[in-house]
Amino acid sequence: MEKHERNIYLDNKDLSEAIDILKSISLGEIRKEKADVCDALNRVSAEPIFACVSSPFYNSSAMDGICVCFEKTMDANEKRPLRLKKNIDFEYVNTGDVIRQPFNGVIMIEDIVEIDEETIEIYEPCSPWQHIRNIGEDIVASELIIPAFHKIRAVDIGALLAGGVRELEVIKRPVVAVVPTGSEIIDYTEDVDTGKIIDSNSRMFEAMIKEAGGECERYAPVRDDYELIKKTVKEACAKSDIVVIGAGSSAGSKDYTKKVIEELGELLLHGVSIKPGKPTVIGKIDNKCVFGIPGYPVSSYFAFNLFVISAMDMMLHAEKKTKRKVKAVLTSRVYSSLKHLEFVRIKLGRVSGKLVASPLSRGAGVTMSLVNADGVLRVPKNSEGYETGELVEVELLKDIQYIDNTLVSIGSHDVMLDILNNRLHKQKRPANLSSSHVGSMGGVLALKSGKCHIAPIHLLDEKTGEYNLSAIEKYLNNFDCVLIKGVKRTQGIMYRKDFKHKIESKEILRNEDVVFVNRQKGSGTRILVDYLLKNEDIDPKGINGYRRELNTHMMVASAVKSGSADIGIGVLSAAKAMDLEFLPIGYEEYDFIARKDVTESEMFKCFLDCLKSDEFESELKKLGGYSLENTGQIVEI
Amino acid sequence: MEKHERNIYLDNKDLSEAIDILKSISLGEIRKEKADVCDALNRVSAEPIFACVSSPFYNSSAMDGICVCFEKTMDANEKRPLRLKKNIDFEYVNTGDVIRQPFNGVIMIEDIVEIDEETIEIYEPCSPWQHIRNIGEDIVASELIIPAFHKIRAVDIGALLAGGVRELEVIKRPVVAVVPTGSEIIDYTEDVDTGKIIDSNSRMFEAMIKEAGGECERYAPVRDDYELIKKTVKEACAKSDIVVIGAGSSAGSKDYTKKVIEELGELLLHGVSIKPGKPTVIGKIDNKCVFGIPGYPVSSYFAFNLFVISAMDMMLHAEKKTKRKVKAVLTSRVYSSLKHLEFVRIKLGRVSGKLVASPLSRGAGVTMSLVNADGVLRVPKNSEGYETGELVEVELLKDIQYIDNTLVSIGSHDVMLDILNNRLHKQKRPANLSSSHVGSMGGVLALKSGKCHIAPIHLLDEKTGEYNLSAIEKYLNNFDCVLIKGVKRTQGIMYRKDFKHKIESKEILRNEDVVFVNRQKGSGTRILVDYLLKNEDIDPKGINGYRRELNTHMMVASAVKSGSADIGIGVLSAAKAMDLEFLPIGYEEYDFIARKDVTESEMFKCFLDCLKSDEFESELKKLGGYSLENTGQIVEI
Repeated sequence: MEKHERNIYLDNKDLSEAIDILKSISLGEIRKEKADVCDALNRVSAEPIFACVSSPFYNSSAMDGICVCFEKTMDANEKRPLRLKKNIDFEYVNTGDVIRQPFNGVIMIEDIVEIDEETIEIYEPCSPWQHIRNIGEDIVASELIIPAFHKIRAVDIGALLAGGVRELEVIKRPVVAVVPTGSEIIDYTEDVDTGKIIDSNSRMFEAMIKEAGGECERYAPVRDDYELIKKTVKEACAKSDIVVIGAGSSAGSKDYTKKVIEELGELLLHGVSIKPGKPTVIGKIDNKCVFGIPGYPVSSYFAFNLFVISAMDMMLHAEKKTKRKVKAVLTSRVYSSLKHLEFVRIKLGRVSGKLVASPLSRGAGVTMSLVNADGVLRVPKNSEGYETGELVEVELLKDIQYIDNTLVSIGSHDVMLDILNNRLHKQKRPANLSSSHVGSMGGVLALKSGKCHIAPIHLLDEKTGEYNLSAIEKYLNNFDCVLIKGVKRTQGIMYRKDFKHKIESKEILRNEDVVFVNRQKGSGTRILVDYLLKNEDIDPKGINGYRRELNTHMMVASAVKSGSADIGIGVLSAAKAMDLEFLPIGYEEYDFIARKDVTESEMFKCFLDCLKSDEFESELKKLGGYSLENTGQIVEI
Repeated sequence: MEKHERNIYLDNKDLSEAIDILKSISLGEIRKEKADVCDALNRVSAEPIFACVSSPFYNSSAMDGICVCFEKTMDANEKRPLRLKKNIDFEYVNTGDVIRQPFNGVIMIEDIVEIDEETIEIYEPCSPWQHIRNIGEDIVASELIIPAFHKIRAVDIGALLAGGVRELEVIKRPVVAVVPTGSEIIDYTEDVDTGKIIDSNSRMFEAMIKEAGGECERYAPVRDDYELIKKTVKEACAKSDIVVIGAGSSAGSKDYTKKVIEELGELLLHGVSIKPGKPTVIGKIDNKCVFGIPGYPVSSYFAFNLFVISAMDMMLHAEKKTKRKVKAVLTSRVYSSLKHLEFVRIKLGRVSGKLVASPLSRGAGVTMSLVNADGVLRVPKNSEGYETGELVEVELLKDIQYIDNTLVSIGSHDVMLDILNNRLHKQKRPANLSSSHVGSMGGVLALKSGKCHIAPIHLLDEKTGEYNLSAIEKYLNNFDCVLIKGVKRTQGIMYRKDFKHKIESKEILRNEDVVFVNRQKGSGTRILVDYLLKNEDIDPKGINGYRRELNTHMMVASAVKSGSADIGIGVLSAAKAMDLEFLPIGYEEYDFIARKDVTESEMFKCFLDCLKSDEFESELKKLGGYSLENTGQIVEI
């Protein structure tokens, strides 16, 4: 791309200004259609709906018993029971039966005594209209059942039908066209290759549109061809109420969205001061609302929610559901980006009775940070950000009870955490495991600062060659915790099967032709790498790629597999998952430190049961590279 | 019906015992099927789902700019910029472009200066792997994306597709057969008549099943014929996972559910100590779960939710969403039924900053109490109930923000309240009106005890002939409130067009052949009736029907229309709605008392604007019988 071809952002508008622009487009016009009541679940009423008939439609018995004329029962009492004759003084009735004149009271079956087939006795008078459901007692014809702009629930359907309503005017579902763009974008049914990206955004949009009560018209991905994009957008405008152009909304040389809108209609906004989601475009073509939504998955999620779903809500006129918010204590500082209102994804946990909020990756490309998020923290523009320990308000994305039952694990990464998570999920006990991977040292610090319940670690004491216990002594002195024995796992050098060298010893690290990929500082494996280099007397400066740091075993394996590195150090299970060769260099102990106060909780007990279960052991055996001795044993410190 | 044919309740089990019985039926077996990821919204994963490919699939540029070898940029600084040659030292890249070897760093377009077409300058070194999204940075192949038993959201669909997952194993949707029974039950498409009841329950169930993630097989209503019901249930068991028999679960002579289950399978429970919902039946036929659900709409709603939806949840294995709860102050005493766990429908309101809970009708037949409920209060079995002023926990059925923006009106009934409610809904301002009809005096007392914001009243001072002001003086002395002028409305005698008498004066009340229907004590209209009788010197004892009390104008009109009474007193709009004749007997003033502290609120201002609007006036004119003078005027007291 050439520099002079780039777009310039038109604006850097505040979110509230952007919403005002959205409101200025006439989205509030009421477009309605008839719907059968039975098909109206979750539709929005366009008019107030009044009952056509009364319910009950007639005076009816509210009980099983007999119907009588109350005036004739006045003299009944305990001492002098009153005898009544069937079909003359009374009739038997079931609940719901019609009460015809002259009857005007019902006596419950429990309160009468049968003398013979034709005669009964009562012991107290019947009150006027006792146990009779009057016509219209529930709903009177012409009474309001639901107001206009009400989202119809199951109970409303029941009431509408009971009130004799068969069909009603509802707001039309907005039709939203989604046009993914980009020459690199392929449909999910195609095989992905280098330079290609699977179109996941447009399918996520489709689901979001459906949930919000609209209809989605999804187009196949359109390549970066200005005329083709223009033609598709024009066509989409003709067929839909809202058009969403996926990607191409930024300021790159192939970002055509702005230009297409300018040519076909009116550009209203380019750039909102939010993060993620800045490169958003809003325009109007033939009085239809057209959006350019950024391509990064997380940006696209926020921009779509804030603008497209809001536009749909305006068209649907429905009462807006408010998101539930909770107060939580921040476990680390959140810097403000000053220029933007920022949406920070948050992991929540109930640690020692206190709800704590830990910020997740702020990268716009990290879909999994959205999948794993429990909530969102808004950091206002121009704010100072938030300090560690500050009480902040978090908008919930998950159920609070689910969060309360979640064991929060922060620390070193291992595939076995996924296996434990699954085992917990499959138990029908209230326990979930959430794990973040920040390396062993990160885990120790997270535990210390109250971010998590447990920290998986494998920290080698370079002096003693021992694992974990000395790290606890050193870093968690006076912190009330226990060590839970985990597994022994094999670390080694990973390399491709077709690699030019057959690797037989650690000496390969001295070969400057071989491209290495490293782990991040503070991770147990990085400590192992540096221990190894020191022991073997290898100078890190001579290692090609020593400065490239990746965060997990799997990312290292993945980099080796793809050829962007030749060797890396990690666990056998990661090498096997990527079908790599593996030279073992030693065993290490991968254990858990747990806060003492969590060990009494039900969720911790579930976790321990899973850790000690035969199923867990056999799943790890299948993966290879693990040995289980004393697994689940609690070591008091 | 004959007494000896009646059933006897087998049990009166506690809810928890009933749930245990439900759990004993093997509903937890995992039944799965494949689903395309794009169709998987709201489905429940049957297995943990791992990524098939990494995302990004290759090392790619995270920015628009140039890619370089970082090693070659080390010497660049502000004083001595470094010149780089295109296609030799660097290449231009857009966000998402592949970074191929040997390049290992990206510099943002903003940080370079173009010298000519072939040359650029940089002013600082590039860090290793700067602005490069590593392969797998978001998702690494083989990484867990979602665990088993997870309800799939839009973001999950995005992440699954990005991870190369095209289809997945999901839990099969439970198929629930719904068999409405009762000879009086007709389909909603048929015209209702005396003795007939529109089948609304089975349609409400259908919607509830759909929302819970199941499929509904609905049968046409089956008449009260033992063999026919048995045959239908047998057929339904063969085709579905769960069978629900609507009505017939009680102990009446035509309540066949228990017997059918006993004959075809095993009866597990008959009768649960809950209210509403006691006559619930649980059984097992061919290892399928069969429920008998009571026929009263509100009972059916609670029983269906507690048992059928719970059974579906067990089959679906999904995490259960917890209902949000709030603490609120009770505005009137809730008696305990002692023998039952009772579910009391609650109207909530934020009065003077305090959330207050007012119990709604406890009748099992009052569908509208469910439609209008904001929440549910559980009154435990054997409890003492709750006192006025007690802080209770209410499970929310509506959004709390919606409740906070709701103006609570309790008092006299008039159709204009529905019109106001609609007008408020149609405004795009945050204000709703909820109105309960307990008569004028009930309204005054509700206002005084902090149950509501406003009370619509029409209270005649028998001595002065004046309306409302003297009532405020008498009952709301020292209470900080204002009077809002409402409307003048015409009261009169309503009668059928084909009635044998032409009614020309109040003298008709003396005619003992004419059946009257009265209003409840404490209602403004009842006061008017009694004032009239006194003035005309008519003895209430001589009036046929004086003791039959109905709660609203519409119910009186409805009783007259149906012939269960001949005359009643009410407003012209009610008579017109039922197409009745009307003899005016006078005007009255229908006003609102409002708490002083609510008059400053946004929702009250919206209410006042609606009251004073031309649209409101013209809608009332259309109804007839109203005159608007000073409407919306605030009278300070």
